[in-house]
Amino acid sequence: MDDIYFEDVVVGSKLQAGPYVIPEPELIAFAAAWDPLPIHLDKSYAAQHGGLTAPGTYLLAVKLRLIHTLPFQRTVIASVGYDEVRFLRPVPPGEALTLQIEWTDKRRSKSKPDRGLVTGRYVLRNAAGEAVLSQLDTIMMRLRDPSG
Amino acid sequence: MDDIYFEDVVVGSKLQAGPYVIPEPELIAFAAAWDPLPIHLDKSYAAQHGGLTAPGTYLLAVKLRLIHTLPFQRTVIASVGYDEVRFLRPVPPGEALTLQIEWTDKRRSKSKPDRGLVTGRYVLRNAAGEAVLSQLDTIMMRLRDPSG
Repeated sequence: MDDIYFEDVVVGSKLQAGPYVIPEPELIAFAAAWDPLPIHLDKSYAAQHGGLTAPGTYLLAVKLRLIHTLPFQRTVIASVGYDEVRFLRPVPPGEALTLQIEWTDKRRSKSKPDRGLVTGRYVLRNAAGEAVLSQLDTIMMRLRDPSG
Repeated sequence: MDDIYFEDVVVGSKLQAGPYVIPEPELIAFAAAWDPLPIHLDKSYAAQHGGLTAPGTYLLAVKLRLIHTLPFQRTVIASVGYDEVRFLRPVPPGEALTLQIEWTDKRRSKSKPDRGLVTGRYVLRNAAGEAVLSQLDTIMMRLRDPSG
């Protein structure tokens, strides 16, 4: 696919990435480093509480890895921020996650003609199609033709 | 410090954690795994563009590690979500980050008497005191005494 520039973003259109199957050792290693709660890394504890679940921050990292499979990494200048981030369902190891992005807004920068702000709703879904993570993500994106 | 339960949260009060000094190898390894942009992991590329900077998701992970130094991990049931997440300034390796939490809202669960929702503004600051990450974080928290 060709790189997606600011001009190519159509509000209402959608992109999809994945699936990414969650490896249990990766989930546990991430939790051990960053979010060492028993429910994320202690299999015997978790077995008494519905099973191991992924840390929310790990899901944000998986989302980012899936974004990197899409053709707009070279045209992103910066991440501005997130809104309405919701951790909607527990995610166990072995789950297959897909990412859907729906562009919701775009506007050119008033001060810098080579870029614009683009907002999308990013949703991670499990194999059953249920949303497990939903957020708005606003990025600063290059124009293909700043004189246009 | 004793564990902080729902009853102990006073809206307007503040907690502090850190500093955590960003190790360059850790930043680069995180970027390589989750957000492999040249500005995050290619030192010669970054040298031409103001220097290596931390991925936003890495800053969220560092924030989480700092939260784990505070005495309410055993009383947190779940993370509900984030709002108004803003990546405000680039963070280079070697930066010393501190976390400040100011509680902004609390309310008991209507359906489950053993818990409540607590919202705080979480701000990561660099050694100069400038905010580099700001967000609202809503967590579900245990009551010490559900009959109270």
